[in-house]
Amino acid sequence: MKNNFKIIAFDADDTLWVNEPFYRETEKKFFDLLQDFGTPEFLNEELFNTEMQNLALYGYGAKGLTLSMTETALRVSNQRVNAKTIAAIVNLGKELIQKPLVLLEGVEEVLKTLHKSNNRLIVVTKGDLLDQERKLLNSGLGQYFHHVEIVSDKKEENYQKLLKKLEVAPDDFLMIGNSRKSDIIPVVNIGAFAIFVPYHTSWQHEEADKIESSHCLEVAHIKEVLNIIEW
Amino acid sequence: MKNNFKIIAFDADDTLWVNEPFYRETEKKFFDLLQDFGTPEFLNEELFNTEMQNLALYGYGAKGLTLSMTETALRVSNQRVNAKTIAAIVNLGKELIQKPLVLLEGVEEVLKTLHKSNNRLIVVTKGDLLDQERKLLNSGLGQYFHHVEIVSDKKEENYQKLLKKLEVAPDDFLMIGNSRKSDIIPVVNIGAFAIFVPYHTSWQHEEADKIESSHCLEVAHIKEVLNIIEW
Repeated sequence: MKNNFKIIAFDADDTLWVNEPFYRETEKKFFDLLQDFGTPEFLNEELFNTEMQNLALYGYGAKGLTLSMTETALRVSNQRVNAKTIAAIVNLGKELIQKPLVLLEGVEEVLKTLHKSNNRLIVVTKGDLLDQERKLLNSGLGQYFHHVEIVSDKKEENYQKLLKKLEVAPDDFLMIGNSRKSDIIPVVNIGAFAIFVPYHTSWQHEEADKIESSHCLEVAHIKEVLNIIEW
Repeated sequence: MKNNFKIIAFDADDTLWVNEPFYRETEKKFFDLLQDFGTPEFLNEELFNTEMQNLALYGYGAKGLTLSMTETALRVSNQRVNAKTIAAIVNLGKELIQKPLVLLEGVEEVLKTLHKSNNRLIVVTKGDLLDQERKLLNSGLGQYFHHVEIVSDKKEENYQKLLKKLEVAPDDFLMIGNSRKSDIIPVVNIGAFAIFVPYHTSWQHEEADKIESSHCLEVAHIKEVLNIIEW
């Protein structure tokens, strides 16, 4: 793979900092709240279905999850769930938004090194804008990034629009992230480059098979990025 | 005021298309749903307080409003509100997200004219990204804009960050919008230019007094923008 780029873009959640485990924890508490109405497996399926149905309306992020949990609670209980449980669900969502920021190991070293050598680094994320700005502020990583780009989804068309906005050719754009579906496959498909850094926990909506391409690499740890990119 | 700019930015809601009246309508339906627990005036004040308390967590947009309506319903009812009412509130939020797109009169003519003469036009909005992308798509106005910028708020620091990201000097940036508080005052305060185009309905959170500055103008109708900017 080539080793220099005009823009190096990092996914945020579970690439720079911990996110998915907090979502799993929130869901587990939600299943506990609703244990009178079904097993965790049943509730998980119901919640996932609600989220998929609402995705076009709500997009990604904690607010959409909170609304989908509320809707799922109403449905699986045949509207018998009580107000206290609804209040607890709304609070679960607020707790999720306020989780501490936990940086992933090696991230700061990689960003510092690339930034020092004048690589232009940006964040590209499909989370909620306010959530992501708060996380970036709490992470202390803001100094390394030129700016943050929030996209409503990470499909080929979203990357195409982004590259046009950034006025950068696909050949000069590298994306680094933990979702093959969102950070790797669409990027490679539009002719840009990608490095996959897996994370141990991922949302079932983000799962996709490995692809073979001279435009992408898979590494075990984010520090390996420094063996690939010129700095 | 000067008459040419590198970037002309338009606010979206109630500058390009109808928004606030749909929010007022949604709130009115919410007050009807909760009439057992208080007058519209009381509920309006309670809802506004909840929204203000949640603003730092939820930001702007329909999802935050839906969660704040739910929380208000739980509080004013002392958690006696029933599940049917909660379901109706969640549905009010979904209806709001799916309101038809109604362009404001004169907008398309202004955009078409400015775009033809090679002005670089962008949208700058603090609404929810997905909502705004959907509205832009439904508006048919996408062709006139270079891109959309979503900001988590419209304070001086947000505009400063935006101008840095766009690599444009304050002197080359014009903002056009219907909120003095969000579109005019912070823009003028950082040395850029602004045109205020009032709209008949505004959220109490957006109200602010008129300011006097050579960097801003107030017009009665968006078409007057064509008398001010070079095209």
